[in-house]
Amino acid sequence: MRLVVVFLFLATVSATCHANCFIEQVVHQIHPLRPRSGAGGYRLENINCQSWRLAVETKNIINWKLVPEACEGYIGHYMLGKQYRKDCETVANVAIEYAKSLTLAGDGKDIWVFDIDETTLSNMPYYARSDVQFGALPYNDTKFNEWVAEGTAPPVPASLRLYQTLLPLGFKIVFLTGTAERFRAIRTSNLKAAGYHTWEKLILKGEADKGTTALVYKSKKRTELVNSGYRVLGNMGDQWSDILGDNAGDRTFKVPDPMYYIG
Amino acid sequence: MRLVVVFLFLATVSATCHANCFIEQVVHQIHPLRPRSGAGGYRLENINCQSWRLAVETKNIINWKLVPEACEGYIGHYMLGKQYRKDCETVANVAIEYAKSLTLAGDGKDIWVFDIDETTLSNMPYYARSDVQFGALPYNDTKFNEWVAEGTAPPVPASLRLYQTLLPLGFKIVFLTGTAERFRAIRTSNLKAAGYHTWEKLILKGEADKGTTALVYKSKKRTELVNSGYRVLGNMGDQWSDILGDNAGDRTFKVPDPMYYIG
Repeated sequence: MRLVVVFLFLATVSATCHANCFIEQVVHQIHPLRPRSGAGGYRLENINCQSWRLAVETKNIINWKLVPEACEGYIGHYMLGKQYRKDCETVANVAIEYAKSLTLAGDGKDIWVFDIDETTLSNMPYYARSDVQFGALPYNDTKFNEWVAEGTAPPVPASLRLYQTLLPLGFKIVFLTGTAERFRAIRTSNLKAAGYHTWEKLILKGEADKGTTALVYKSKKRTELVNSGYRVLGNMGDQWSDILGDNAGDRTFKVPDPMYYIG
Repeated sequence: MRLVVVFLFLATVSATCHANCFIEQVVHQIHPLRPRSGAGGYRLENINCQSWRLAVETKNIINWKLVPEACEGYIGHYMLGKQYRKDCETVANVAIEYAKSLTLAGDGKDIWVFDIDETTLSNMPYYARSDVQFGALPYNDTKFNEWVAEGTAPPVPASLRLYQTLLPLGFKIVFLTGTAERFRAIRTSNLKAAGYHTWEKLILKGEADKGTTALVYKSKKRTELVNSGYRVLGNMGDQWSDILGDNAGDRTFKVPDPMYYIG
């Protein structure tokens, strides 16, 4: 059945395809060599990639390890195409409207919490690599940390626009990330190079929190902020573990991310 | 500008359109007569309907009153087309996989909580009406209650399949709805006619809870269940107010609903 489909596909290629056909064929050849696995590592039959993405974004599918093999192309097109950008712009627009509707106390304690990866900085140059494939290949800690150490991640444009709107409104910015403390210097220079030139706090994950889940770690750090007199008026992240838990914030904003899951 | 677009549209209609063109033109003529309003009642510029729907489903846009005028057609096509059905099937598949992974205590206290409207029963025959327009026209309590009183709502097929899977696994079913207590008889017959033939409890909103938000009301009712010894292993609803709050359940499942918001 599959062979027949492949044959028909190849037979029609010359009539219908564009310049990237060769690349697609090569990529297709790689697929049978890779284990098939969906959310949770099992094989998903007849997966609808749009439905999979919605289920991920709405926290129906959790604890997943890999983008389903069948959806690698779909997720790649989504992330590199217009829709991801538009989705991010819409979230930023809603957040800006909310931020502008508030009257701040003016005591410097009104904060907006931002996650970093896939929220304020984009790792797309890394995720688009052929050895990463938009999260369809297993996460490699060493490789990812090498990319972080380059310090060249661009901003998520919509989130940078939100950031630039929040500052003159009087919000103090707190970056709260699961990145390890040892990357403080490079993350600082990366944030500044991307346009995030000032902040109240940049909280990275120290040795004491190593091994705790993102949800527990971020809840704890937000609680410390609240205990210090800060008010979390807004909180934005690409993972539900960024925006659920203790002192999640008066309003939370979920930026799309169908490439990986952090619990 | 708009007139030019309309002219070009009409000029190309004869060449490109199908049988429903006349209907589309009539619907288009109605639009200028209606107030433009987006999430929260304000005018949204350059709205991307896919982004709007994702933002609604991920709880970024809250407290909205109407489907944006510009998205009425998009939402209608989504709800009546294949994607809504596939999205519901995917949520049900994930829920079934979760349910099957559990070992129940066998004491009859393991429950699955279902919301009713747009979760187990579908109001599509109502929402597709020309005087409702998939939530693009203001909600009319009297009209909606007349529809509920007919008791003819069909099931959401994917959720019925989940229900049919849960029963033999040993789950007790609890329906928890914001529908008023006075509709108990008709809701009971409607559920049974739609295929939901048995349940542990059918909880409707009594006089004591009138005026409380859905989030507070449903939290209270779930807490009463837990205090009676029940364990909420799963909880499924089309609104975030169904699945957030106290005793939300070990796993929650968000069924798509871009037609209305209940806080």
